[in-house]
Amino acid sequence: MEIIRIPRIALDTCRKHLLKGRSIGFVPTMGALHEGHLSLIRRSRSENDITAGSIFVNPMQFGPSEDFDKYPRDIENDIRKMRDEEVDILFMPDRSVIYPERFSTYINIGELSGKLCGRFRPGHFTGVATIVSKLFNIINPTRAYFGQKDFQQTVTIKKMVKDLNFNIDVVVCPTVREPDGLAMSSRNTYLNEEQRKAASVIFKCLTKASDMIKSGIINPEQAKELMLKAISEEALITDTDYASVYDPETLDEITEMSGDVLLAVAVQVGTTRLIDNVLINM
Amino acid sequence: MEIIRIPRIALDTCRKHLLKGRSIGFVPTMGALHEGHLSLIRRSRSENDITAGSIFVNPMQFGPSEDFDKYPRDIENDIRKMRDEEVDILFMPDRSVIYPERFSTYINIGELSGKLCGRFRPGHFTGVATIVSKLFNIINPTRAYFGQKDFQQTVTIKKMVKDLNFNIDVVVCPTVREPDGLAMSSRNTYLNEEQRKAASVIFKCLTKASDMIKSGIINPEQAKELMLKAISEEALITDTDYASVYDPETLDEITEMSGDVLLAVAVQVGTTRLIDNVLINM
Repeated sequence: MEIIRIPRIALDTCRKHLLKGRSIGFVPTMGALHEGHLSLIRRSRSENDITAGSIFVNPMQFGPSEDFDKYPRDIENDIRKMRDEEVDILFMPDRSVIYPERFSTYINIGELSGKLCGRFRPGHFTGVATIVSKLFNIINPTRAYFGQKDFQQTVTIKKMVKDLNFNIDVVVCPTVREPDGLAMSSRNTYLNEEQRKAASVIFKCLTKASDMIKSGIINPEQAKELMLKAISEEALITDTDYASVYDPETLDEITEMSGDVLLAVAVQVGTTRLIDNVLINM
Repeated sequence: MEIIRIPRIALDTCRKHLLKGRSIGFVPTMGALHEGHLSLIRRSRSENDITAGSIFVNPMQFGPSEDFDKYPRDIENDIRKMRDEEVDILFMPDRSVIYPERFSTYINIGELSGKLCGRFRPGHFTGVATIVSKLFNIINPTRAYFGQKDFQQTVTIKKMVKDLNFNIDVVVCPTVREPDGLAMSSRNTYLNEEQRKAASVIFKCLTKASDMIKSGIINPEQAKELMLKAISEEALITDTDYASVYDPETLDEITEMSGDVLLAVAVQVGTTRLIDNVLINM
């Protein structure tokens, strides 16, 4: 595994592979790797000649009151995991080469950025789109891999790829879960034992609502109530940002079902914000 | 010359050349081609294996009260000129494939967009950056060619290329001028005979100020006064947006000279807005 810290070197290295006709799969991460990330790497390895990963905790996608400083960093283990998964290229730039002095260019995705998590994290998806477009230009991947857990992220990146004519396939991979259903997330490490147990209610409420809909009760209001009720019964969930039924393309809350639907939840467990979702193909 | 109207086909065609190790020079235009454009094409031909041109009058870079509808269109002659200059690929997309319904992604370059022309054309440089990034992703050029006449455009595009890690050399070519010094511009066709004569004062005032500075009077205030005075003596110049001395990197007006300076002018001649500039290497 080649570890590269300089954009220009990563660019030249990836370009050489490209010129030899090799496909490049790309797995951008913020490190603190878990099984979810590793599943993306494995999928990339199975579909491409070369797999490139990146580790960069992107300050631009954190709000001023968010957890940038305490975001888990475990660089030695991350490198080991990437190597064990036979990643070919690991791009691990310093903040100063990604955002040099007087950096000032931003990609705004429009309405989609303001929905769901965007309402609670202003600027977050501008930060995501900007860093991802930079990484795309550096790595020049054939395919890029993202987890479905961050559903709105996948939708906004697909939107950017389409609107700006990036020649990249965005591959969305299934959410990887703990045995009790909790979606894997680097932020799960913030939870104490009791909070960790309580957090399992997120996937449980999504499953309940999903089961209800699949059983034929295709009523978004009822699904929403079911989720909110289940969450409210868990005392350690301190706040609910949203829990409802959405159009998976527009991310608008829906009151009538026609076509695929997204059940999505964002809650606070103490100071930790957790999200999850389930997509139902009708 | 291959004429291509569909982004995906342009992308695949350019990619084939790229995979054969060929360099691609790119000359994006809004059509109504004049000698300035042709000089960019010739420069590209001399430096690259393949030259791609594009013609697209980009609605996003026109303000609501600007001249999008009446902007000169002369597509038959443009195609002939591109062919005569031995352009290899002409990308000529319809508006609907560049901005399909629900298009919503914008690239904001930050402070530079608000300087000089940006003060009078809000949104203009966001429109420029967005279309150029789209064209860059479609054509994947090795080098892209722009005229120095649109100096702020070249600065913002260079900034975007740097900030977003595009692997493209931005080549700025000298302004091509009419015999009386007027910078070539598609908008010159708007001028009637008298206005056309009056417009020559733009380059004359730039030359006067430049000569003064080069003669050793390195005083921005005096240079500015000289330009404003020359312009004010021309009755057909109906308004002056700006005429002064600027830092060519930050585009800020300067009061003391240290390093290169930009003399830049934007005026109205009737309903026609004309710009020009001279760069002085100190």
